[in-house]
Amino acid sequence: MKKFINDPGSVLRDALAGVAAAHPSLRVDSVNRVITRATSTPPGKVALISGGGSGHEPLHGGYVGTGMLDAACPGEIFTSPVPDQMLAAVKAVDSGSGVVFIVKNYTGDVMNFQLAAELAADDGVAVETVLVDDDVAVQDSTWTAGRRGTGATVFVEKITGALAEQGAPLAEVAAIGREVNAASRSFAIALTACTTPAAGRPGFDLPDDEVEIGVGIHGEPGRRRGPFQPAGELAASMVEAILADMPLSEGDQTIVMLNGLGATPLIELYVLFGEVAARLADRGIVIARNLVGNHITSLDMAGASLTICHATAQMLTLWDAPVHTPALHW
Amino acid sequence: MKKFINDPGSVLRDALAGVAAAHPSLRVDSVNRVITRATSTPPGKVALISGGGSGHEPLHGGYVGTGMLDAACPGEIFTSPVPDQMLAAVKAVDSGSGVVFIVKNYTGDVMNFQLAAELAADDGVAVETVLVDDDVAVQDSTWTAGRRGTGATVFVEKITGALAEQGAPLAEVAAIGREVNAASRSFAIALTACTTPAAGRPGFDLPDDEVEIGVGIHGEPGRRRGPFQPAGELAASMVEAILADMPLSEGDQTIVMLNGLGATPLIELYVLFGEVAARLADRGIVIARNLVGNHITSLDMAGASLTICHATAQMLTLWDAPVHTPALHW
Repeated sequence: MKKFINDPGSVLRDALAGVAAAHPSLRVDSVNRVITRATSTPPGKVALISGGGSGHEPLHGGYVGTGMLDAACPGEIFTSPVPDQMLAAVKAVDSGSGVVFIVKNYTGDVMNFQLAAELAADDGVAVETVLVDDDVAVQDSTWTAGRRGTGATVFVEKITGALAEQGAPLAEVAAIGREVNAASRSFAIALTACTTPAAGRPGFDLPDDEVEIGVGIHGEPGRRRGPFQPAGELAASMVEAILADMPLSEGDQTIVMLNGLGATPLIELYVLFGEVAARLADRGIVIARNLVGNHITSLDMAGASLTICHATAQMLTLWDAPVHTPALHW
Repeated sequence: MKKFINDPGSVLRDALAGVAAAHPSLRVDSVNRVITRATSTPPGKVALISGGGSGHEPLHGGYVGTGMLDAACPGEIFTSPVPDQMLAAVKAVDSGSGVVFIVKNYTGDVMNFQLAAELAADDGVAVETVLVDDDVAVQDSTWTAGRRGTGATVFVEKITGALAEQGAPLAEVAAIGREVNAASRSFAIALTACTTPAAGRPGFDLPDDEVEIGVGIHGEPGRRRGPFQPAGELAASMVEAILADMPLSEGDQTIVMLNGLGATPLIELYVLFGEVAARLADRGIVIARNLVGNHITSLDMAGASLTICHATAQMLTLWDAPVHTPALHW
């Protein structure tokens, strides 16, 4: 294993030092392991907090900033953060208007955020939780009851963030988050496994002529191994898996993310996005907005995920609202 | 080799289809293989054109937009574009105020851009060329006479782009580009080789316990093979190689880019940037601005490059000017 790390045990600590050095718009609390905006939450604004295991960068710390998250709680690599981190985040960013927890559906994350929500409620903070479970690949998986939470997290964070920035009340911010999750589906294909620093070797073996179809963002098994195929065929598999679960009709407006899992060159993501776009165009489905790049990764996994959100006019308006974070900016 | 491609011969064509589908702010001329802004160059504005082999995305197409390039000419993977592409770009974006070619110092690129400049001059277009040659690793290399052009290209494109947007005349825009190049140095370390689609196998062999120190963006050999070391040691090597060539003093202002070569997870780039920042801070050198991420890549190479620009106040002001491109936006 060759990685730019000092020690498998210090990766998160060392990365947080780098985040702090890179982004003056963020404040990094390295003791509590909480990343917040450098500015305080204005009174009247609902605060959005997300978090999860590290190794998926830029998620979540890279989405802290105006128009998106107020705080992120990074756990160790592929390990849930703990309730104390979330409570520290609540204390740092709640301005009295309540907090939304955006939680990817993994058992550890769900349990820890739930405990934190109860503790925050004991402190008199109003907390709503939006659970993200968009991955259509498998019904239950290694680390989840129910579907895994993946790419739709980026959409939920962007769109709830925009509504919160406008001063919408807690229930409304949480409601749009749930609506975005319900309207979104994801599906991923891995070309290689990823290697965690602690394990030091790839999480699974994948022959040179096979791909993992429906892989999870920690390398959890997907639906099946399949033969390696041209980009057009793989794109078709992803599109079909999503549309089988969420039928879309001619003229439907969508937000589409073609996401690299960490080690996939951008030129390949463009090839794949071109194929996805052609297949959606064949069905008359409109890509109203899109993201192509590394947004929710799986360390050094080569592969890609596709996320499609069947967007309402309100979602598109909120998508277009200004966002100033390290990883999304317009 | 597993890659998201349809055929090794169609990668550029297919990727351009994806770029066109992803970015309504760009116009992709797939016949001439030129990427321009969707809007015309306003009269009085110098047009900036860059280009080079593909495989370094987001460079250069991802930097086309307000405040940066007017056009990019992508060649086949790791292969120079041809003069006809550059001439088509000149015709598309020259508004009568002249054109600056931003050229990375590789023999093929230099020759083809020079021929294009002569042909454009024959057509009455005023052309200035800014040659980027910032890589301190080797004096001459496989594909260059003189130093290779790498990360400083991003700085040159951003800063000349800002000045051109303000309506500065041709000579002045070219001059600041040359000034930025002269004030910038880069150095890269590879953990793995990259695989071009045409070759189908890694460009060189690198043992599991060694790194290539001073590698080029096509996998050209660096200064030496060295043992794999912790991030802190590798960061120190990069910083020392640059400062040995361009001494900086306490209080000097810099723009620093810690760039991933394609397959390096962002969390590792943050670890490495934290180490770079600590070493510059030890010397009192100020990181006034920074970029951490994949900006000039080498397909699926795991590795990173460090670029440091000794910035003047004018450069920092131009750096801060608005930029609206797919890959840089503020």
